[in-house]
Amino acid sequence: MQFANWIPALQWLRGYDRRVLLGDAVAAVIVTIMLIPQSLAYAMLAGLPPQAGLYASVAPLLLYAVFGSSRVLAVGPVAVVSLMTASAVGEVTRAMPVDYASVALTLALMSGLILLAMGALRLGFLANFLSHPVISGFISASGLLIAASQLKTLLGVSASGHTLVELLVSLGRHVGQTHALTFWVGLGTTAFLFWVRKSLKPLLLRLGLGPMAADLLAKAGPVLAIVVTSVLSWSFDWNAQGMKIVGTIPQGLPPLSMPLIDSELWQALAVPALLISVVGFVESISVGQTLAAKRRQRVEPNQELIALGASNVSAAFTGGFPVTGGFARSVVNFDAGAQTPAAGVFTAVGILLASLTLTPALYYLPQATLSATIVVAVLSLVDLGALRHAWSYARSDFTALVGTLLATLLIGVEIGLVIGVLVSLVLFLYRTSKPHIAEVGLVPGTEHFRNIKRHKVQTHPELVCLRVDENLYFANARALEDRVNEEIASHPGAKHLLLQCNSVSDIDGSALESLEAIERRLADGQIKLSLSEVKGPVMDKLRRSDLIHSLEGRIFFTNYQAFMTLLGPKAKELA
Amino acid sequence: MQFANWIPALQWLRGYDRRVLLGDAVAAVIVTIMLIPQSLAYAMLAGLPPQAGLYASVAPLLLYAVFGSSRVLAVGPVAVVSLMTASAVGEVTRAMPVDYASVALTLALMSGLILLAMGALRLGFLANFLSHPVISGFISASGLLIAASQLKTLLGVSASGHTLVELLVSLGRHVGQTHALTFWVGLGTTAFLFWVRKSLKPLLLRLGLGPMAADLLAKAGPVLAIVVTSVLSWSFDWNAQGMKIVGTIPQGLPPLSMPLIDSELWQALAVPALLISVVGFVESISVGQTLAAKRRQRVEPNQELIALGASNVSAAFTGGFPVTGGFARSVVNFDAGAQTPAAGVFTAVGILLASLTLTPALYYLPQATLSATIVVAVLSLVDLGALRHAWSYARSDFTALVGTLLATLLIGVEIGLVIGVLVSLVLFLYRTSKPHIAEVGLVPGTEHFRNIKRHKVQTHPELVCLRVDENLYFANARALEDRVNEEIASHPGAKHLLLQCNSVSDIDGSALESLEAIERRLADGQIKLSLSEVKGPVMDKLRRSDLIHSLEGRIFFTNYQAFMTLLGPKAKELA
Repeated sequence: MQFANWIPALQWLRGYDRRVLLGDAVAAVIVTIMLIPQSLAYAMLAGLPPQAGLYASVAPLLLYAVFGSSRVLAVGPVAVVSLMTASAVGEVTRAMPVDYASVALTLALMSGLILLAMGALRLGFLANFLSHPVISGFISASGLLIAASQLKTLLGVSASGHTLVELLVSLGRHVGQTHALTFWVGLGTTAFLFWVRKSLKPLLLRLGLGPMAADLLAKAGPVLAIVVTSVLSWSFDWNAQGMKIVGTIPQGLPPLSMPLIDSELWQALAVPALLISVVGFVESISVGQTLAAKRRQRVEPNQELIALGASNVSAAFTGGFPVTGGFARSVVNFDAGAQTPAAGVFTAVGILLASLTLTPALYYLPQATLSATIVVAVLSLVDLGALRHAWSYARSDFTALVGTLLATLLIGVEIGLVIGVLVSLVLFLYRTSKPHIAEVGLVPGTEHFRNIKRHKVQTHPELVCLRVDENLYFANARALEDRVNEEIASHPGAKHLLLQCNSVSDIDGSALESLEAIERRLADGQIKLSLSEVKGPVMDKLRRSDLIHSLEGRIFFTNYQAFMTLLGPKAKELA
Repeated sequence: MQFANWIPALQWLRGYDRRVLLGDAVAAVIVTIMLIPQSLAYAMLAGLPPQAGLYASVAPLLLYAVFGSSRVLAVGPVAVVSLMTASAVGEVTRAMPVDYASVALTLALMSGLILLAMGALRLGFLANFLSHPVISGFISASGLLIAASQLKTLLGVSASGHTLVELLVSLGRHVGQTHALTFWVGLGTTAFLFWVRKSLKPLLLRLGLGPMAADLLAKAGPVLAIVVTSVLSWSFDWNAQGMKIVGTIPQGLPPLSMPLIDSELWQALAVPALLISVVGFVESISVGQTLAAKRRQRVEPNQELIALGASNVSAAFTGGFPVTGGFARSVVNFDAGAQTPAAGVFTAVGILLASLTLTPALYYLPQATLSATIVVAVLSLVDLGALRHAWSYARSDFTALVGTLLATLLIGVEIGLVIGVLVSLVLFLYRTSKPHIAEVGLVPGTEHFRNIKRHKVQTHPELVCLRVDENLYFANARALEDRVNEEIASHPGAKHLLLQCNSVSDIDGSALESLEAIERRLADGQIKLSLSEVKGPVMDKLRRSDLIHSLEGRIFFTNYQAFMTLLGPKAKELA
């Protein structure tokens, strides 16, 4: 691989011109406006001071612009990864005497290094082991957990907990101390934001605005909420009335920060860092591929690992916390017309300007406003329709989805995800260990064979033909032996057993021994084993085994040939 | 299921007559003679007093005779399970203040209950997840470990350790204290037993004995070794010269014993008990099925679980330790002409008589003689040829075998087995996550399609036909997307993409989403997706999805039909 392939930026920089610049710049302005409240809110969700969210939206964007293969992905703090950060850092800081913010930096560094390593080793395919139902269940559960965790801020009470039950019990205990003003501001902002999300765009369209302008105005809802509540909070001195406000956010450039290098801490963070890396990668790659497909572009998974790894490492040294490519911001970036990652660079400059100049304006911003923006954003992650969909399509998908959802809600985000992956793997292994084996017969007038239970087909009492619908491996080899024994017992006149192998793409050593055992047992009963439609790679393997010799002359190219040759003149008696 | 089906004994008792009785009785005498030294030796291997081996060969045989579905399986202490018992009990007694023998009883009870539960829940198929390479590697490693553990007795030194390295290091440290007399007796007995095993039978045959008699005399070698060394030990008072002898074995019936009921102990023993159950079941069912096939009988896995479970529970209450169906003794039983499990009942009576009367005669028996019988017996378990065989057949089998072998030797028996199972599952998942996808073309003059890389076939630039050789599920769905993208990029004239699904037996929810994504992306590029040869169960699932509507009219019964319909008159241009 050439050097230039590692730096996708070298490609898009070549064709950069004024038209592209304009698209990127407009998109950057819009994304910057959207990112400011989001960054503050997700930093709060991660348990960090608000400026950490701004810092995490500068250097990572620059690094992604250099190394990323998606043209429009916007990197920064996202809801699910922030929740996972809060969970991991919270657990470690309760157990060890370490500084919360430093642990978050360390987590970003570790997850960056893991992503870089996965990219260098081309392990992007590992993310495939997170199945859609597991991701769906995990994201929905995270959305519910995040929403529940924001209730305390919206009510103005103190509560804590790491599972849904703990959170709700703790809230129930403190609900009597609800701060009335906070409650009304929180409720009002939430209702307003929901209204903006659901009804503002259609309303603006009806009022005659263009679809683009309507869309952008609707997206600016959170900014409006922030401005209005900040002004109210300042005017009526809400802080003096007991409402929590954001307070001082230091003005300035992102600081140079040092993650902790400590073997005990790294051990404690290893599993969370790995999970954050994988979840972040899956979220990012899904968004990236979806958007790339719309413009016929391609996203390269291993390059994305490198880019996200570099972004996270940069977050670790500039006062941030774990980041990834976010869904909402990337879509906005795409819709607003971003053409290249230069839009990301301009956005980073925008955030930088905001953190240099805007932060005093945020002093009076009620925390409840930020919580409201989080709640409204994450509830769109909760997709309970997926439950119905999975139920109607396949019970195993449904089981994996519900298992992940409940484990994440009731036990915790990390364990929930691990349980989800294990459940989906166990279900897959269980399915493959019970292979579908169909007795087939000849479709009259053709050379094709089909299941005798589903089609009108011709068979002959001297020949039993089974189609094995699964690769043969250790977990299902015995099932084939049992099925053959059954079929032979129920076909007393059988002289030939023909296995149609067109669905068998692999036969491992254990299955080979089973086939040899079947061959010997059939031979004892004067029944001959034959195979047909053995695929090339499987045939290559069989040639290295002993079975091939005892089967000599009885491996056929097509099932029809086998059928006709084995029956000979008796083929006329087909029933 | 009727009551009689749970008690296979009711079936064979019906036809019981004098001829069958004679066969059973002769076999019982021979097996009894063979079992006495074996039982003592395996008790020693398990770290228990020798009489425990005799006790474990009485009640379990009776229970198996009632519940077992194999006609000839002989149940009792076996080498690998005894090694696992020693490992598990040793670890627990080092950590907790509990009596060694009582823990062994508890382990037998727990493994019996686990087997009964697996039988009742019909979980016999779980044993299929132990692949042949894993079993082979585990048994070979156990054989080596057992042989190494006996070296200390053969040298007359004290040494300890639970892995091969620990054992050898400890032996090396004590080898200077070798007891010369013990060493020579051990070496002589071992050499004699090897000679008996390898050369005695051919010699006897050459001397004119019948094959049956020669075989039985050769099997009696260990008994001869015991008699001769016992007499020598008594005559020359070897004990007084510092040699370790068996000593007093209490005369009498198996005692009524109580396993410990203690939640902490049961927790500590849970994993070892589970592994002992599974390994014992796999060993037993393999022997049982092999021997049953020779006489056209059937062994029912779930019934075997019940029978082995009952046997182990009975061992727990009669002074024994975990047992299972043994390979050597079952083969001897079969060869000696046993017809029904009544042979097992007679064997139990024989062992009972021995433990009532013979034990004083064993007082002077050198322990080195027992170790020699163990070493010679277990080295036949070590099958290094399997390594070469696995290497030539499939690298993944080889990897699983070597992984299990090394982990068992170097880390421990339980962890070794668990690692082996995990390695083989991970390798399987890895293989299925990289599906074989072949571009296929029409074999001229037929209706069959084959890989364009392996056969001379006809194709058309407007139609790309891919055969997917794997079930589509979450771990490989993305690989299909990537492959389709590649193929489309390299076939710029393509107007149709045809997926031949004859090897696809399942499409899960994640793969369905991938197919939908492929369909959308192809449609964006004016390429139509079609499917062919979709199997019945997969079609049933697709009918419940949205994909079926967008594909309407483009799912074909055969690939040939699809090919001809999609190309239409252009089929004449086939190259």
